[in-house]
Amino acid sequence: MLVNCVAYDRGQKLSDIPLSEVRSHLDRRDCFVWVALKDPEPAELAVLQEEFGLHELAIEDAQKGHQRPKIDEYGSSLFIVLHLIEPAGDDLQTGEVAIFVGPQYIVSVRRDAQLGFADVRRRCEQEPELLQHGPAYVLYALMDNIVDRYFPVIDRLTAEIEEIEERIFGGQTTRDQIEALYSLKRKLMTIDHATQPLLEVAGKLHGGRVPPICMGLQDYFRDVYDHLLRLKQSIDNLRDMVTTVISVNLSLITIQENEVTKRLAAYAALVAVPTLIAGVYGMNFTNMPELRWAYGYPVTLAVMAALDIYLVFRFKKAKWM
Amino acid sequence: MLVNCVAYDRGQKLSDIPLSEVRSHLDRRDCFVWVALKDPEPAELAVLQEEFGLHELAIEDAQKGHQRPKIDEYGSSLFIVLHLIEPAGDDLQTGEVAIFVGPQYIVSVRRDAQLGFADVRRRCEQEPELLQHGPAYVLYALMDNIVDRYFPVIDRLTAEIEEIEERIFGGQTTRDQIEALYSLKRKLMTIDHATQPLLEVAGKLHGGRVPPICMGLQDYFRDVYDHLLRLKQSIDNLRDMVTTVISVNLSLITIQENEVTKRLAAYAALVAVPTLIAGVYGMNFTNMPELRWAYGYPVTLAVMAALDIYLVFRFKKAKWM
Amino acid sequence: MLVNCVAYDRGQKLSDIPLSEVRSHLDRRDCFVWVALKDPEPAELAVLQEEFGLHELAIEDAQKGHQRPKIDEYGSSLFIVLHLIEPAGDDLQTGEVAIFVGPQYIVSVRRDAQLGFADVRRRCEQEPELLQHGPAYVLYALMDNIVDRYFPVIDRLTAEIEEIEERIFGGQTTRDQIEALYSLKRKLMTIDHATQPLLEVAGKLHGGRVPPICMGLQDYFRDVYDHLLRLKQSIDNLRDMVTTVISVNLSLITIQENEVTKRLAAYAALVAVPTLIAGVYGMNFTNMPELRWAYGYPVTLAVMAALDIYLVFRFKKAKWM
Amino acid sequence: MLVNCVAYDRGQKLSDIPLSEVRSHLDRRDCFVWVALKDPEPAELAVLQEEFGLHELAIEDAQKGHQRPKIDEYGSSLFIVLHLIEPAGDDLQTGEVAIFVGPQYIVSVRRDAQLGFADVRRRCEQEPELLQHGPAYVLYALMDNIVDRYFPVIDRLTAEIEEIEERIFGGQTTRDQIEALYSLKRKLMTIDHATQPLLEVAGKLHGGRVPPICMGLQDYFRDVYDHLLRLKQSIDNLRDMVTTVISVNLSLITIQENEVTKRLAAYAALVAVPTLIAGVYGMNFTNMPELRWAYGYPVTLAVMAALDIYLVFRFKKAKWM
Amino acid sequence: MLVNCVAYDRGQKLSDIPLSEVRSHLDRRDCFVWVALKDPEPAELAVLQEEFGLHELAIEDAQKGHQRPKIDEYGSSLFIVLHLIEPAGDDLQTGEVAIFVGPQYIVSVRRDAQLGFADVRRRCEQEPELLQHGPAYVLYALMDNIVDRYFPVIDRLTAEIEEIEERIFGGQTTRDQIEALYSLKRKLMTIDHATQPLLEVAGKLHGGRVPPICMGLQDYFRDVYDHLLRLKQSIDNLRDMVTTVISVNLSLITIQENEVTKRLAAYAALVAVPTLIAGVYGMNFTNMPELRWAYGYPVTLAVMAALDIYLVFRFKKAKWM
Repeated sequence: MLVNCVAYDRGQKLSDIPLSEVRSHLDRRDCFVWVALKDPEPAELAVLQEEFGLHELAIEDAQKGHQRPKIDEYGSSLFIVLHLIEPAGDDLQTGEVAIFVGPQYIVSVRRDAQLGFADVRRRCEQEPELLQHGPAYVLYALMDNIVDRYFPVIDRLTAEIEEIEERIFGGQTTRDQIEALYSLKRKLMTIDHATQPLLEVAGKLHGGRVPPICMGLQDYFRDVYDHLLRLKQSIDNLRDMVTTVISVNLSLITIQENEVTKRLAAYAALVAVPTLIAGVYGMNFTNMPELRWAYGYPVTLAVMAALDIYLVFRFKKAKWM
Repeated sequence: MLVNCVAYDRGQKLSDIPLSEVRSHLDRRDCFVWVALKDPEPAELAVLQEEFGLHELAIEDAQKGHQRPKIDEYGSSLFIVLHLIEPAGDDLQTGEVAIFVGPQYIVSVRRDAQLGFADVRRRCEQEPELLQHGPAYVLYALMDNIVDRYFPVIDRLTAEIEEIEERIFGGQTTRDQIEALYSLKRKLMTIDHATQPLLEVAGKLHGGRVPPICMGLQDYFRDVYDHLLRLKQSIDNLRDMVTTVISVNLSLITIQENEVTKRLAAYAALVAVPTLIAGVYGMNFTNMPELRWAYGYPVTLAVMAALDIYLVFRFKKAKWM
Repeated sequence: MLVNCVAYDRGQKLSDIPLSEVRSHLDRRDCFVWVALKDPEPAELAVLQEEFGLHELAIEDAQKGHQRPKIDEYGSSLFIVLHLIEPAGDDLQTGEVAIFVGPQYIVSVRRDAQLGFADVRRRCEQEPELLQHGPAYVLYALMDNIVDRYFPVIDRLTAEIEEIEERIFGGQTTRDQIEALYSLKRKLMTIDHATQPLLEVAGKLHGGRVPPICMGLQDYFRDVYDHLLRLKQSIDNLRDMVTTVISVNLSLITIQENEVTKRLAAYAALVAVPTLIAGVYGMNFTNMPELRWAYGYPVTLAVMAALDIYLVFRFKKAKWM
Repeated sequence: MLVNCVAYDRGQKLSDIPLSEVRSHLDRRDCFVWVALKDPEPAELAVLQEEFGLHELAIEDAQKGHQRPKIDEYGSSLFIVLHLIEPAGDDLQTGEVAIFVGPQYIVSVRRDAQLGFADVRRRCEQEPELLQHGPAYVLYALMDNIVDRYFPVIDRLTAEIEEIEERIFGGQTTRDQIEALYSLKRKLMTIDHATQPLLEVAGKLHGGRVPPICMGLQDYFRDVYDHLLRLKQSIDNLRDMVTTVISVNLSLITIQENEVTKRLAAYAALVAVPTLIAGVYGMNFTNMPELRWAYGYPVTLAVMAALDIYLVFRFKKAKWM
Repeated sequence: MLVNCVAYDRGQKLSDIPLSEVRSHLDRRDCFVWVALKDPEPAELAVLQEEFGLHELAIEDAQKGHQRPKIDEYGSSLFIVLHLIEPAGDDLQTGEVAIFVGPQYIVSVRRDAQLGFADVRRRCEQEPELLQHGPAYVLYALMDNIVDRYFPVIDRLTAEIEEIEERIFGGQTTRDQIEALYSLKRKLMTIDHATQPLLEVAGKLHGGRVPPICMGLQDYFRDVYDHLLRLKQSIDNLRDMVTTVISVNLSLITIQENEVTKRLAAYAALVAVPTLIAGVYGMNFTNMPELRWAYGYPVTLAVMAALDIYLVFRFKKAKWM
């Protein structure tokens, strides 16, 4: 589905144009065209391939989707894939943007993602002095926007692990926490797969042999790169925390087991000791003087109770109960 | 066993030819020969070595098999080994393809694999404009085909681990799951050994000093490289999941142990408390008024039952039963 | 908030100047200006951007804060971010300094940190022969000071782990130690995030292509780099110790469990054996000669006691009690 | 001990010569000398040092032994150390070969190894067209032979781990398996130490700046390198399997513990329930009608048995027995 | 404290000289001065700084101590720090040597170490043909000596882990072994910190851009480098063994727990079964014929004993006792 197709001249919006007029604008030197598609049909991509002379393998990738984030150079044009991570209930949903950038065009193809880039376009159009850098600036604006969308996801995962920690140290070392940790680990992988390869992409755009159409914007792409490094650090942290929490949890489970064993032993003693005494006075010896004492029975009961009270006191002191 | 031997001129199939006519076709500049063998005899390889002037060490490797995936340059020709992973019952079976590529020939030697490359040949012959790139394009088509065959294997292993997860979180932390995880880990190794070294192979064919006969096809080999990177990521994920699941499983086993201990303790209490009471009234004191009460016995039984009901209630509340 | 703004000529302090006079000093070749801000308002940063021609992206980073430590070159000027780690109760608090360095100015912007750099300024002014190296020397002095502040933090964490070790080997393998280890791990991450990326920063200032304004001071920046390497080693150590202590702790918990089980078993035996004997003499056989012996009862009690004494002796020997 | 000293001319064996005649052969341009020693005396090495002008540090290494595999260039000559791994009972025994290679000589010094290189010499002499490449070809032949000797060691270790796996999954999670795994890990280290540094050695001989005397034989050394990569992969695999098996074993031990606990609980219940009933009918209430029933006793015994049979049935169903 | 200060001419010792005469010797082209200090006062270092023109930052490092091993180039001179590891009771003590090397001087500053370098000096003076290489040869001799001192430390740690292994596999999986492993891990860190950074130091002295004053001695420094690689391998091994032993120990503890549980259960059964029988014959049914049998009591006791003997037999067979 075509979302937008707009021509710009020296950073100023000219007008929305139909795809068929694209070619006439490409003839004007200072002009570039910015096309946005969403879940496009093969036919739409075929038109774009024709108009902008896009490489067959890049079109194929944009069509099939399920690419990892990457940057491919085809002659003087670039093909870039990024992931869009959006929350979906308790889970994360991965969408994809494929971006074709040439000297006079930029085409973004969005898949499986709710949120579009209308915002980015609006902001770009408000700063024509920056937009006149051409399609590469739009590429920067899109990447910056997409990378900024990862931060709240990280914040959410951080909140999740903190809740889990709290529950675990609060004594709830149950199955549920383990499942939550496991699911968290999965989500970390999702976001890691979106950002990790992007580092390489952003790296290629600001250091070493920079593609010609991105020349002059290295400082901007380095800024994106810095954000990605921050993300990477946060993700590595979270990953490390999850591993630690899993092992901490195992220790706590074992400690809990220990405590349960001690508690059980304490209660068992409270029953076993009086049982022994009862057993003794259940013996059938003819000559057991206590049996004939007037207060033998209540005294025995009192001794049983006293022993149990003493045991409770001892066990409490030893923190077994 | 010779499967095919076909001569091509500018991407067009000329005809099936016997091995003995190969040399005459090599004399024509735009012509190349595509030979496919399956589990060949030493004699067949000797003929090929003779006809195409293949290097002795390469022939030896193709003969012996059990190579790791690799690329060797011998002057202007290439020798490439790839693994073929095919499901075999519950397990995976590793086959091997050795490919010799020269300016005017490509020879594929398949071993221990069911599925051949008839498909690749058919598709290549349908696109003569691509096939006229020569043997290097055939090499790309073969590699692309082989790499695409790895994806369903990965999907299968992903399904396996998801089943195991489900069973484990469903409470089945038994020996069987552990064996399944262990066997999964083995299969991951198999596929990892097939793909990991291929990254280096594909890397050499599209970046840095590209072998001359692959010049002009770098974009295609980069595409294979991208697919391999995706595979690598999936494999790394699975590997990581297996490790996590093993440790999650250990935690769950320990939790289960804890629960069993608590349940046992609860049931033990249900028996021990009435036993104590019975012991008390089994004592032989002369002066135990309850013993002579008319309803002493049924009241005692009732007290026993009441205590047990109370305990059941408490244990249920504490989730011990 | 503006803390200081001082002009220097050949390393000699000229005078405190208002921000508005900065420009006039920048016209004199041997003069440079050193500005210190604390939690500045956007307006203050805007003035600085205007006066020194700072890059928009750098100003944005200094404004927003929450950057990772980094170095960015903008033309002939540098933008550097460092973390300040200060103890806050039992935890660590991360502040930030952003430093802009140009040929004739250095601006430090401090955020969320108690301790300022008055000290550094004082020391620099006492050594005019070094200060005449210009803003790059001030940069060195600031970095050196900040890096030196990390060492006591490390010492504190080292003391913490040693306390935990002692408690654990002293038999206290409780929840508290695990929480302490976990919190220690978090603090290690905080300090690691402050120092790890600084290595790269310091590396860029003394090796390879050194930024022109730092030329001639490489030996000094290498010294900072050496300190960072030492920090890194200490952090890696602590991290390794924490991991080992967690696993040691798990072993000790399991050993303790073992000991508890043995102790319980020992005590259980002390009760169970006399209970069995009592049971035997509670049997109602008509013909049980012992029952009628005059000393049957006391002898039985004595046997019970003797058996228990023997058991205690055996258990003590086997270290079960 | 001198094993052999033979002079070759253009790949053809001339004759066995005494060490004293070496120098006269070195004067003839197409001639080279191949010397093999075994556990030599210092005096023998001194003669060789004299004759061939070997470097003092290399001689010292060959004399002392216990070197790690390595390659050192001394001017135009090479000094190479390799490990020889031979089975010794249940363990592995590490021997050493030090090889000196110059333009006209090759000296191999073997230590602590049973198996010599007579085989290699025989095969080389049968292929004079290859042997005329000179000492570097002999070096290749020796390295190829030594590397090929590692494969059966790997096969043996693979068989060992498979046996251990089988025993562990067969329920034998005992001390013995753990000791076997531990000893396996040790052997893996031994073979890893022999092969890991060899990768670097073989790498230096076929890629980058190849030592002049090995020029023209790169394809052969790359073949050795490929074999070493295969070994490395196998070793990494085995190492990974050992780690996994250790952790799998721990899980199985814990599962077994769980099963033992359940089994114990089941048997305890079979005793405790009848004991409770016996206790009830051991009470001394005057008014317990059952006690006076004619069949009270046998019915009670029957109820006890019936309850136990029911419990056995329940426990069997829940897989506790 | 000044230990020695000796002037050498072409490798020949001239004489012991006071520090004040150093300068006159530096004027003679073939002369160099070798100074050894031990725990020097700041004043002594100040004199040296003055005499040899040492860099302020290097002097500061030598003064403060607690550096990590490193090499710093200051113009044509080198500043090198090495650690000295000496046994101190059960622990290891880390000393430090700082070495200043210039074209005509070498100064070693030793701290916190018992053993000095008199030996090195003696050996150097016995080989004037080597000593005439100048201060760089002395540097080599010192490094070689220091590195050789690490090997016995490694041997000691290897012996320690072997003892621990033996005790653990001998069934002593106690707290003490864990503490020993933990302390071993600490000592490994100490030696690792001494040797790891030295690899880089030795690497810089024999490969790549070698400092001019070390030219011609690369073969010697490569030898030191080789020794360090061997050390590194041994340390990595030991570290790996410690990790494995910790996890093996945990498995053994759990197995032991299992065995204890089984043993306890067996003994519990020996008490519980006769207790049940005693309970049965303690019931008060009027009609219990056995009670009136003449041999009822001894037969019952015999049955109890028989059952226990049978149980012992069964438990022994199942290896529970």
